Amino acid sequence: MELISEHACFGGIQGFYRHASAEIGLPMRFSVFQPPQARLGPVPVLMYLAGLTCTEETFMIKAGAQRYAAQHGIMLVAPDTSPRGTGIAGVADSWDFGDGAGFYLDATQAPWASNFRMYSYVLHELRQTILKQFPAQPDRIGIFGHSMGGHGALVLALRNPAIFHSVSAFAPIAAPSHCPWGQKAFGNYLGADQAAWQQYDATALMQGLQQPFPQGILIDQGLGDKFLTEQLMPERFEAACAQAQQPLTLRRHAGYDHGYYFISTMIEDHLAFHHRILTAN
Amino acid sequence: MELISEHACFGGIQGFYRHASAEIGLPMRFSVFQPPQARLGPVPVLMYLAGLTCTEETFMIKAGAQRYAAQHGIMLVAPDTSPRGTGIAGVADSWDFGDGAGFYLDATQAPWASNFRMYSYVLHELRQTILKQFPAQPDRIGIFGHSMGGHGALVLALRNPAIFHSVSAFAPIAAPSHCPWGQKAFGNYLGADQAAWQQYDATALMQGLQQPFPQGILIDQGLGDKFLTEQLMPERFEAACAQAQQPLTLRRHAGYDHGYYFISTMIEDHLAFHHRILTAN
Repeated sequence: MELISEHACFGGIQGFYRHASAEIGLPMRFSVFQPPQARLGPVPVLMYLAGLTCTEETFMIKAGAQRYAAQHGIMLVAPDTSPRGTGIAGVADSWDFGDGAGFYLDATQAPWASNFRMYSYVLHELRQTILKQFPAQPDRIGIFGHSMGGHGALVLALRNPAIFHSVSAFAPIAAPSHCPWGQKAFGNYLGADQAAWQQYDATALMQGLQQPFPQGILIDQGLGDKFLTEQLMPERFEAACAQAQQPLTLRRHAGYDHGYYFISTMIEDHLAFHHRILTAN
Repeated sequence: MELISEHACFGGIQGFYRHASAEIGLPMRFSVFQPPQARLGPVPVLMYLAGLTCTEETFMIKAGAQRYAAQHGIMLVAPDTSPRGTGIAGVADSWDFGDGAGFYLDATQAPWASNFRMYSYVLHELRQTILKQFPAQPDRIGIFGHSMGGHGALVLALRNPAIFHSVSAFAPIAAPSHCPWGQKAFGNYLGADQAAWQQYDATALMQGLQQPFPQGILIDQGLGDKFLTEQLMPERFEAACAQAQQPLTLRRHAGYDHGYYFISTMIEDHLAFHHRILTAN
């Protein structure tokens, strides 16, 4: 693991790092905020997955989360949003596919399958790197994210409830099989057979839910979000939660859009939500 | 005044605007955060001046100030850091001079004098635009800034105490006549005669102080700031304050560097400081 930079922040350390990723087959960057409590021993971990076009830096710069992470004693971890430098033809041609748009899945189709393995990267390699290199509690890990990263957080948590004990999202792509962003990404990364898409669709996963999150799921959604109707579709996830008897707090906020001014307004509540669940018992 | 974008944020409005500036002779961008209290009537105003290479967006994205501005009912205003699009030869060649480096002064030397008038722009034109276009209280205006913008805030306040009632800074260039950044900028914008520099040097102004700020001046400085010794020199300003019997709170923070992770850590105290002064009486 290579240090890129570290900065004092709210009594803790905001760091940026690079490591050779076996899953991705290329170097990957990630960021970690260690709260002051981490100097005294392992602390709970909250992983954040960012949206389209973002990097490992976006959340740490824009969300204002460190204040609350320092208050609650939670470590924040954010990966980049895709492999970088694959050299695949056309990988940088779209803002919603390829570079900056890994969709937190393991691609099965050429030429994407060898590098675009963000699902396994986050679930296994990044998590284990954090547990090995930082004072992190392996049994107190939560996950959240925004837009494409909200999709990723819901999918990773729903498929791995023994690993991720708390989950929340800001304006997630909640039913990607049904929206243009998801259909473009899934069609290219996973192929035309939509049966293979279901394991990466939070609404489909909720429809087949085995193990509910008893503490609930928190989602914040702005009603001034221009992507709400066509791309995000939280109402589909909400209906699936009701059907599956999964407690869900879906808050709809008049006037708020899709950006980080919205996220920064809501971030305090998400840190408190994860803190409450991760420190119970 | 042209609207670029507005975003709901902490119950208020984060906006970006453009207007034709008579002082600058070109269009200028600026940003305003209107707290929720501004819907009920005029509120105090706090102007923020950013540092080298920054824009009107930097502070609003990175500092996390809106939470506290919303709490205290303070409007935040941030200009760009220089004229843009002057077409002057070499204007974009340096990161510490020209574009993004207006140093909040009125240039007297060709070819800079016709556009580089950030001092008068902030003091008169931007302030009057804010008072005219937004629910702002004309007699409750404070100013603060970072690095080059900390220099600008101190200079604008010390020269105009009837206009700016509160002043603070993060890692200001506190004695620009004595450091490479200041000498390069002042030499080019103001000419070789150092007598003309004194009106833009916070330490020199403090040495000739007519009217102290009875509520004090607040400065935060990181001791891990790589620019501290060669460029910032807060100890010179501190000595001048002591001499002039100007109350100064200069806080030195072990480990903190020059960036926005430092600023975001300290921003709550600055908003509280300005709020206390601006709402007294």
